[in-house]
Amino acid sequence: MEVTIIGTGNMARGIATRLLAGGHEVTLLGHEAGKGGALAGELDGYVGSGTAGDPIEGEVVVLAVPYEAAAPLVQEYGDGLSGKTVVDITNLVDWQSFDGLVTPSDSSAAEEIQKAAPEGVSVVKAWNTNFAGTLVEGGVAGQPLDVFVAGDEAGAKESVIDLVESGGSRVIDAGPLRRACEQERLGFLGMTLQQPLGLGFQSAWKLVS
Amino acid sequence: MEVTIIGTGNMARGIATRLLAGGHEVTLLGHEAGKGGALAGELDGYVGSGTAGDPIEGEVVVLAVPYEAAAPLVQEYGDGLSGKTVVDITNLVDWQSFDGLVTPSDSSAAEEIQKAAPEGVSVVKAWNTNFAGTLVEGGVAGQPLDVFVAGDEAGAKESVIDLVESGGSRVIDAGPLRRACEQERLGFLGMTLQQPLGLGFQSAWKLVS
Repeated sequence: MEVTIIGTGNMARGIATRLLAGGHEVTLLGHEAGKGGALAGELDGYVGSGTAGDPIEGEVVVLAVPYEAAAPLVQEYGDGLSGKTVVDITNLVDWQSFDGLVTPSDSSAAEEIQKAAPEGVSVVKAWNTNFAGTLVEGGVAGQPLDVFVAGDEAGAKESVIDLVESGGSRVIDAGPLRRACEQERLGFLGMTLQQPLGLGFQSAWKLVS
Repeated sequence: MEVTIIGTGNMARGIATRLLAGGHEVTLLGHEAGKGGALAGELDGYVGSGTAGDPIEGEVVVLAVPYEAAAPLVQEYGDGLSGKTVVDITNLVDWQSFDGLVTPSDSSAAEEIQKAAPEGVSVVKAWNTNFAGTLVEGGVAGQPLDVFVAGDEAGAKESVIDLVESGGSRVIDAGPLRRACEQERLGFLGMTLQQPLGLGFQSAWKLVS
């Protein structure tokens, strides 16, 4: 599959690593010229680069940027995203207090991005409960990662599920996009536990059975 | 430790099993006369019984009842709970839609029960992400359970942590009682995944590192 990742930070690196491991073609778009290319140069596989604002080639677009940048990107691209699957990976943490999310309480970052998106765009929530380093590694403690995926449009969700599974992770289909609300709380809870438990962002949520 | 469990359902059975395995003294109070005794008769260890409304002997009281019954119980007992630790295990699921919680969105069942409680009562959130059968078993897939514990009063939380650990589970200290909000979302998410994934309430959340 052809996937565009907007962002060149740790999460972009982690997700790109897994997608490339799955044999997919990845284009990294940085906010500053050259940043996408710099990250691409460090990765192995079918990886290209460009600058945010470039036309989107991939059928799936991962917004590997903070929420504050994600919603405007969707609006700026507008119809350039039509027919595409947009993956939201954000947790809208209240960084002032680190004591909760600032998402509207009856909604989620993913649902807000869906509202901001032009018609024909399907937003899928994924990777928001995973830490960048564990995505680069492809696992934790010798076990594959669980990646929670929520979305309303079956085809879009299926594409993301394929991407996740081909990169060696296990998908937990959390259901409709509304479940992003729970996924984001799970992501936040995981973040709060890193410092007190000394986990160094090397942990993962697993649903064991 | 001396622990009183109010309730005689599956969760009461699961939690009592773990507490008794940890060598604690458990009193089961049923809503109907005889029910506590019936469950007690099926369990091994230092286990007694009585009826809801009986004086609370335990320093820790587990409300193993639905939320709708838990808050009134706290108010009915009133000063009879003074100085005690009250454990809330509920997830306030919207059973009509099974599409979310009906908890006030800036709060949690545990915080609401704390508000309803008389002064001197410390509410701790625990076991709400665990299923009854896994508590009876004491693990899932050969691994001990992770039990998330949130509370504001250090001594009360420490008592619950001791109870959980002595029964062979791993405690994840989720922080202040406010984190019950995230714990309850986690509990709900786990419930929604049972039927689609065919897990039969034999799964457990683990934070792997």
